[in-house]
Amino acid sequence: MSALINVISNFIRMTALEEEIVNELFTPLHLGLGEYFLEQGNICRYVGFIEKGLVRYFMNVDGSEMTIYFNKENEFVCNYQSFLPRIASNTSIQAVEESVLRVISFENLQRLYSGVKEGDKFGRIAIEYVFLSGMEQLKSFYTDSPTERYQQFLSSYPDLAQRIPQYYIASYLGIKPQSLSRIRKKLVAKK
Amino acid sequence: MSALINVISNFIRMTALEEEIVNELFTPLHLGLGEYFLEQGNICRYVGFIEKGLVRYFMNVDGSEMTIYFNKENEFVCNYQSFLPRIASNTSIQAVEESVLRVISFENLQRLYSGVKEGDKFGRIAIEYVFLSGMEQLKSFYTDSPTERYQQFLSSYPDLAQRIPQYYIASYLGIKPQSLSRIRKKLVAKK
Repeated sequence: MSALINVISNFIRMTALEEEIVNELFTPLHLGLGEYFLEQGNICRYVGFIEKGLVRYFMNVDGSEMTIYFNKENEFVCNYQSFLPRIASNTSIQAVEESVLRVISFENLQRLYSGVKEGDKFGRIAIEYVFLSGMEQLKSFYTDSPTERYQQFLSSYPDLAQRIPQYYIASYLGIKPQSLSRIRKKLVAKK
Repeated sequence: MSALINVISNFIRMTALEEEIVNELFTPLHLGLGEYFLEQGNICRYVGFIEKGLVRYFMNVDGSEMTIYFNKENEFVCNYQSFLPRIASNTSIQAVEESVLRVISFENLQRLYSGVKEGDKFGRIAIEYVFLSGMEQLKSFYTDSPTERYQQFLSSYPDLAQRIPQYYIASYLGIKPQSLSRIRKKLVAKK
């Protein structure tokens, strides 16, 4: 069973025929290091499933890049705030490792919803999850301190601290790389 | 056709039997002025549909109330961030007019999703809308000025400015009632 079918099967039951439909609706996409899944100003036309690799979401704010989110293998990647209403994205999504994805277009996702018996159930549960995580993420960005955000980052993504360049992590925390070094030293000293 | 069935029919097709099921799963609730749909610290156990009336969402922050959202007739009311994961709510929801609702419990909503053919489709589209509006709302709260937020409030809810006490609107904008008076005067002068 592919990793994609495996993840969807956590939410819904599918017949063998339905699994085949899903496999056909998601097409392969390869992203080299630094290549874009989505560029700011374009409409996000795909939801991707990451089989292997890692992407970062970032915005250009006053001329400098602000990293706001990450997704890694076995996770879905999409800017739903552009994808759902089909409006230009204020966010770019870029591969920070060579990545292997399976992607589905807006139109084919509607086919999945209607063609798979529990397709809408999958869509409902997936977007419920995105909603809760997005609200939490956005709230944390404005209300938590950089140290708190770094600790949450480490507990949500224990392996990513090794895979992501420190300046992306610093940007995600809204601080300079030097400040991240200081936070890391303090946390090590506390242990 | 009831207002509730009318609104759901904007999203999905239902048979007469399914409409009856929906009508039975939503039970009537009457809230007097000042009564609570949800109190901070409790789990939000219902989604409500407002047939008549108006509610406000608020949080207690450092000992004072901060109004964060409103819902009125023909809209659904719920703190999904408590309802979906079934955790204690950090938000209260209170009637600011005498209100007539139809409410559905978490368990009965799952029955609606499975018992109505397009139930999950309704759930998916409804939560997509809540996601987009919630993210926009939260982002605006942190990035827009009080004047911008007031103008958005007036354009989203043209009739509410007359129905909601000015101090709730001021609290929603994150400012003192006197500052709201100044903003209103400036906007009137500009016309």
